[in-house]
Amino acid sequence: MFIDKSSKELYEEYKDIAQKAADLYYASAVLGWDQEVFMPPKGFPYRGRQLATLASLAHEMMTSESYGNVLEELSGRNDLSENEAANIRLSLEDFEKKKKLSSSFVNKLTQQVSSSYDAWIKSRKENSYKVYEPELTKMIELKLQQADMYGYEGNSYDALLDEYEKGATVAMLDPVFEQVKNELPSLLEQISNAEQVDDAFMNLFYAKDKQWDFSIDVLKKIGYDFDAGRQDISEHPFTTSFAPEDVRVTTRVSEHDFASLLWSSIHEGGHALYEQGLPSEQYGLPLGEAASLAVHESQSRLWENNVGRGIHFWQHFYPVLKGYFSEQLNDVTLDGFYKGMNKVQPSLIRTESDELTYHFHVLIRYEIEKALLNKELQPKDLASAWNSQYEKYLNITPPDDKQGVLQDVHWAHGSFGYFPTYSLGSFYAAQYYEQAKKELSGLESQLSAGEYGKLLTWLRGKIHVHGRKYRSNELCKSITGEGLSFSAFMKYAQEKYSFIYNLD
Amino acid sequence: MFIDKSSKELYEEYKDIAQKAADLYYASAVLGWDQEVFMPPKGFPYRGRQLATLASLAHEMMTSESYGNVLEELSGRNDLSENEAANIRLSLEDFEKKKKLSSSFVNKLTQQVSSSYDAWIKSRKENSYKVYEPELTKMIELKLQQADMYGYEGNSYDALLDEYEKGATVAMLDPVFEQVKNELPSLLEQISNAEQVDDAFMNLFYAKDKQWDFSIDVLKKIGYDFDAGRQDISEHPFTTSFAPEDVRVTTRVSEHDFASLLWSSIHEGGHALYEQGLPSEQYGLPLGEAASLAVHESQSRLWENNVGRGIHFWQHFYPVLKGYFSEQLNDVTLDGFYKGMNKVQPSLIRTESDELTYHFHVLIRYEIEKALLNKELQPKDLASAWNSQYEKYLNITPPDDKQGVLQDVHWAHGSFGYFPTYSLGSFYAAQYYEQAKKELSGLESQLSAGEYGKLLTWLRGKIHVHGRKYRSNELCKSITGEGLSFSAFMKYAQEKYSFIYNLD
Repeated sequence: MFIDKSSKELYEEYKDIAQKAADLYYASAVLGWDQEVFMPPKGFPYRGRQLATLASLAHEMMTSESYGNVLEELSGRNDLSENEAANIRLSLEDFEKKKKLSSSFVNKLTQQVSSSYDAWIKSRKENSYKVYEPELTKMIELKLQQADMYGYEGNSYDALLDEYEKGATVAMLDPVFEQVKNELPSLLEQISNAEQVDDAFMNLFYAKDKQWDFSIDVLKKIGYDFDAGRQDISEHPFTTSFAPEDVRVTTRVSEHDFASLLWSSIHEGGHALYEQGLPSEQYGLPLGEAASLAVHESQSRLWENNVGRGIHFWQHFYPVLKGYFSEQLNDVTLDGFYKGMNKVQPSLIRTESDELTYHFHVLIRYEIEKALLNKELQPKDLASAWNSQYEKYLNITPPDDKQGVLQDVHWAHGSFGYFPTYSLGSFYAAQYYEQAKKELSGLESQLSAGEYGKLLTWLRGKIHVHGRKYRSNELCKSITGEGLSFSAFMKYAQEKYSFIYNLD
Repeated sequence: MFIDKSSKELYEEYKDIAQKAADLYYASAVLGWDQEVFMPPKGFPYRGRQLATLASLAHEMMTSESYGNVLEELSGRNDLSENEAANIRLSLEDFEKKKKLSSSFVNKLTQQVSSSYDAWIKSRKENSYKVYEPELTKMIELKLQQADMYGYEGNSYDALLDEYEKGATVAMLDPVFEQVKNELPSLLEQISNAEQVDDAFMNLFYAKDKQWDFSIDVLKKIGYDFDAGRQDISEHPFTTSFAPEDVRVTTRVSEHDFASLLWSSIHEGGHALYEQGLPSEQYGLPLGEAASLAVHESQSRLWENNVGRGIHFWQHFYPVLKGYFSEQLNDVTLDGFYKGMNKVQPSLIRTESDELTYHFHVLIRYEIEKALLNKELQPKDLASAWNSQYEKYLNITPPDDKQGVLQDVHWAHGSFGYFPTYSLGSFYAAQYYEQAKKELSGLESQLSAGEYGKLLTWLRGKIHVHGRKYRSNELCKSITGEGLSFSAFMKYAQEKYSFIYNLD
């Protein structure tokens, strides 16, 4: 039935369907953003059904036979441009993946997310994993079924990893996390034996409005375009995109924890720079989307950690910050500030941890997810397994479930395979940052001078411009000459913390 | 094909389609609200396409054959409840009306709205009607075609009025506006010959944040539920609803025009009280919608004018206001405040006019629309016709087109037949307020005491609870014993302004 249509015509049909589905997806994002940021409490039930209707219409479009037929036909045409062919290849992959789940299964999963989420909330209130266990058990069962529907070669966990990080497998991640286990502990031990740094100034009183103004200064300076975005307050900071030219960030402010707003703003700002840099002419198509979660995270962490927690960044920004908080920071030198805010200390909560111990938090979740999916760990034993892992890797014991296994919402949402992308993001960030230093002469003097344009342009040209064209590992190889590796991160960490803690 | 289905099953099918379309409609409303209130400027083109996609999907649902079939079948069933039958009757009316316009015509109209709007913006910049004229001429041509497609008995203008005010006709409105022309001028003349009131205090400096806080006090006090809504700032104040329990208002603040925020907040608050009072179990169905534009306007104007510009309201609120602005209002007595803010003075701009001259602004537009649609006035002569009307009725001459024919966006949007609902709203408001005074003993002492609950409950029980069940005229008759009439308004105006201007 397509035989008479030119590839150009067919490609327009493809774009029309994909971009209309994207309109629905972005409309949902607006509703979701409003829900987190501004919606009055009584709006919840209605918002829930509006989001469900948008999602089901978008799903219908993206799994319709007519869409599938257009994709099939176009994937056999050889007169498409390279980018067009890439879009078709990726959209067909997505289509086929979506088709593997029956709509009855998708409904079941949606309902289970709702029950698991409720149980998680309740279990946190009662501070007891037992309340969560039955619903989590059902969720894990469904995720196993989902893995079977997707199919996999090696490990059932691979099928789920692939949802968040196309192409990632246990075989690829195990060696990386093996390095984490082999190399990080000795650095951590040296740090814990060294003289400790003072971070008490981080918890003085910092007025909200000044913190806010400083965060706006920082976002503007690193290149976040406020004509194509805005910052608001929400309980959990996030970045959301309604189009490449409307990308919004949220942050949180705590008056006695200066770190809270600061790192949230720069982190989300990094995500947002990526979204604002995606090619707008590819709106709604794979080449207009981020490459993967890990690549997304590499952008947020590069700005948050490699840049934002670096000495060069603060050579410019510390005087600005002192302008806002002269009293609080009067006795704190740049050196003292830099060291204090980079303090390393094993702690219970992933989202509040430092740059180094963070990866043990992720490693623990990675090992637990693998064990659950491979039935080497039973859900009933999860809370105690969690605690033993924290003792083993961080030498601390959660005093209760809320500070232990109940801290993350991910599993309640059915997100198994998501956590590893956080660490991968840091590792890619270190690889990219190292490469940028090689290619951009004087990069760090630019950072010291408050000039971030060249770094952003480099990231835009190397990463953002490609959208989803390359998988994360492939992209990294083409930019740095090497695929995913822990070495750049380890080297970065050694250098940075040797200075901070006066290590030999 | 429906023969085997029970009415209960079919009604569920009907509800499912109608409520899903409502989800899309409300999602659009969220996107529209965000666009006016928070969206960064570069988001415009994307937001435009997202809104278009949502609108076309909703239109598809509401005009689909399957939806029509369900409605047809249900309209023949006799085992529906009274409310169910009302929903089906109204939805079928809507369906049939929508079906009268071909989709090619709807597209043409949408495109013309866009061109007319652009031309209107441009003409305002250049302060010249000539720039607008060709596009407005095309718009009027389309509106005439639209009237023909809808069909009408008496006047072609009737077909357009019916879009905004079901059942309204020239035959019904002419006598009412005839009364405006016969009765209002003598009152206005008496006022202009009387000693003028002093309103200079309205234009002192009033700090934004205090004005804002006062408006929140007022909204809370009149019963606006902030758990089911919020107030924000926008260029043009509006009310929007995302569900009966998420109804938002916007306002504007001018530091040298106290009237700007105050009347906007109460006016939009009145609209919002109506939306918050619609029956939530009828979400997405006609009985969950407002009765008509005029009834909507009756609610906003009852709160803005009959209540908010009344002496009783300020007996409670003037001390509160003085608490915020003691300096500005130090020398202004309650009596002086009441009189000053009710100052009557013919002016050029409809949205800034007083309670009395307002109706001449509407009358002028009503007469012009009728003349344009009946080809008694040519678009080329519109600007001069506008000016002569202002001379005739208000004895003032617009110095330029921007303060004349170019002041309203309505015609650019293709809204012909909308303006009269503004005056109808005031007339119904006066009728309802008069009736409420009869039925609620001591109503005005309650207002003086800052108690608005009984009035709101009365409005909820008499008007809000019915949704769209009754047409405006019918609703008014059932509540007051009389259909639309100018008399209650005229009586209210005579009493109020005789006191303010010391008339005999």
